[in-house]
Amino acid sequence: MTRFREHGEDEIRQWADQIKNGDNRMIARAISCLESGDSRGEALLEKLYPRTGQAFLVGLTGAPGAGKSTLTDRLITHLRGEGCKVGVLAVDPTSPFTGGAILGDRVRMGRHALDSGVFIRSMGSRGNLGGLARATREAARILDAAGFEVIVIETVGVGQSEVEIMHLADTVALVLTPGSGDAVQVFKAGIMETADLFIVNKAERAGAARLVRDIEEMLSLAKGEGEWIPPIIRTEGKTGRGTDELWGGLQKHRRFLREKGQWEERRRTHLQREVQTIIEETMRAHLLQEMNSPSFRKDLDRMQIRQESPRRVARKWLNRLLGGGEEGGGT
Amino acid sequence: MTRFREHGEDEIRQWADQIKNGDNRMIARAISCLESGDSRGEALLEKLYPRTGQAFLVGLTGAPGAGKSTLTDRLITHLRGEGCKVGVLAVDPTSPFTGGAILGDRVRMGRHALDSGVFIRSMGSRGNLGGLARATREAARILDAAGFEVIVIETVGVGQSEVEIMHLADTVALVLTPGSGDAVQVFKAGIMETADLFIVNKAERAGAARLVRDIEEMLSLAKGEGEWIPPIIRTEGKTGRGTDELWGGLQKHRRFLREKGQWEERRRTHLQREVQTIIEETMRAHLLQEMNSPSFRKDLDRMQIRQESPRRVARKWLNRLLGGGEEGGGT
Repeated sequence: MTRFREHGEDEIRQWADQIKNGDNRMIARAISCLESGDSRGEALLEKLYPRTGQAFLVGLTGAPGAGKSTLTDRLITHLRGEGCKVGVLAVDPTSPFTGGAILGDRVRMGRHALDSGVFIRSMGSRGNLGGLARATREAARILDAAGFEVIVIETVGVGQSEVEIMHLADTVALVLTPGSGDAVQVFKAGIMETADLFIVNKAERAGAARLVRDIEEMLSLAKGEGEWIPPIIRTEGKTGRGTDELWGGLQKHRRFLREKGQWEERRRTHLQREVQTIIEETMRAHLLQEMNSPSFRKDLDRMQIRQESPRRVARKWLNRLLGGGEEGGGT
Repeated sequence: MTRFREHGEDEIRQWADQIKNGDNRMIARAISCLESGDSRGEALLEKLYPRTGQAFLVGLTGAPGAGKSTLTDRLITHLRGEGCKVGVLAVDPTSPFTGGAILGDRVRMGRHALDSGVFIRSMGSRGNLGGLARATREAARILDAAGFEVIVIETVGVGQSEVEIMHLADTVALVLTPGSGDAVQVFKAGIMETADLFIVNKAERAGAARLVRDIEEMLSLAKGEGEWIPPIIRTEGKTGRGTDELWGGLQKHRRFLREKGQWEERRRTHLQREVQTIIEETMRAHLLQEMNSPSFRKDLDRMQIRQESPRRVARKWLNRLLGGGEEGGGT
């Protein structure tokens, strides 16, 4: 056992070195480990954690067809021109697929295949949104440790799932398009508060000015004094127009957060949330296992014939789980 | 202390007796206790639990304006004609208000004010959906113990919140209206599986036949052999037409569940879910308290300067919470 373990540690050290050296194939392998729950993934993260926290994590969210990947592509080209390494994690909670081989992504990856300064990967859920958020967060950490300076996290859709995943980005940009009715949806879903930047993409289309006005109106209702006022940036994915302004807006937000002391505060909140999520998920797994025991089945029987109430049974199992071991207890 | 406690037990016994006797004012007071977290509420539930499990819990859900309360009113009149006691819990997750004094409900309550065989109550959240579901479940139990034979749980809207609350009903009826685009929404949100009955209300309007066809089409895709096929019932809230069929459909579903042995099974699932929810909510409260401690703050500091990883910190606190007390641990 000891020998195996030492061998394991050697392997992890070697992997970590390769990642630090920016070996994209090893990065891909590490992310696969994290997705599949391979324990080497966790060991690797542990080793790399001290090197993380450097990258700028940008969240890019919006409805399907809003043009997120084209925009990301434009951003990659722009940033590569400045010599900046860029990682992309394309998150699709509705896709059961993992491993970066969705057709569109293959095309994108092909374009940058020879450029080791770009890493693109699709992250699909396997029905478990919590797991997806965790894998994405940890994949971003691998890229961070590998020296990627900007990491774009693309998420599909507008809804709770995105809000969840967006809690790991430093800056969140929301992509809207003219005539899609997105703005109303966004307002309804309470996503306004999550967005640090608004991007009106396909700005060459009719209705762009109207969309900008709608967003401005919403913003005037929502934001208070001295707070960050999300800029509204017009982009044209097709021509690349507006990409400079987009990157400018992202940088401006980062500066704002740093100047106001909100940068570390936001990251602290994210770390706290991350710990909470890991604890709750582990506890839930533990609880579901307990609830499969014959002893719990018996309690279910007793509840069903009204011998014991749900609150009382809950308290009993809670005591068991929390190690107290006391059963029962009065009202 | 002992004296007080004895006095408390006397009080609870007296309350329980009044509820068993169908004293509506005492029922209202008990529900208020449950909503506000007054410990007498829990004590009372404990005492009444053996008397519960008799009532038929009907969930009625649909978008605002679908005519749920008018339908409920028609159902009340119909059931009162059969000598059946009816309780109504109107759940509105978007309303911060509790206590049954929403204007529309006042009107409804006024109409039945002299009839002790009817009890109507609005349940509003105070920002906490979990709390609302629990309070509603427990309010239904009070009504059950008081001898109400049918309890209608009305919920506003079509979404996750309703699915949550619908997990406490024996039979779920979904109210749709012609021309509202509801059917598509419902299909998207995956609510089809939750509905045991479809009600096409305002069936006098244009588009009713179309809506029925749409639902039929969806149903043909979704349901398997030997399973319950949800009937589609046309109602006209305004005239009361279709109320007989509605009650007939509800009864038919109850019979089906009983004949197939699914009645107890469903209730068992609900009880299990209830226990799980209570445990998870309590654990979360416990966890959030721990995360406010200076000791956790220190761990946050350490994570932020990359001395310790989130997974490691999570494991440490998990061990603490679960009573193990061991800290650290390997990879």
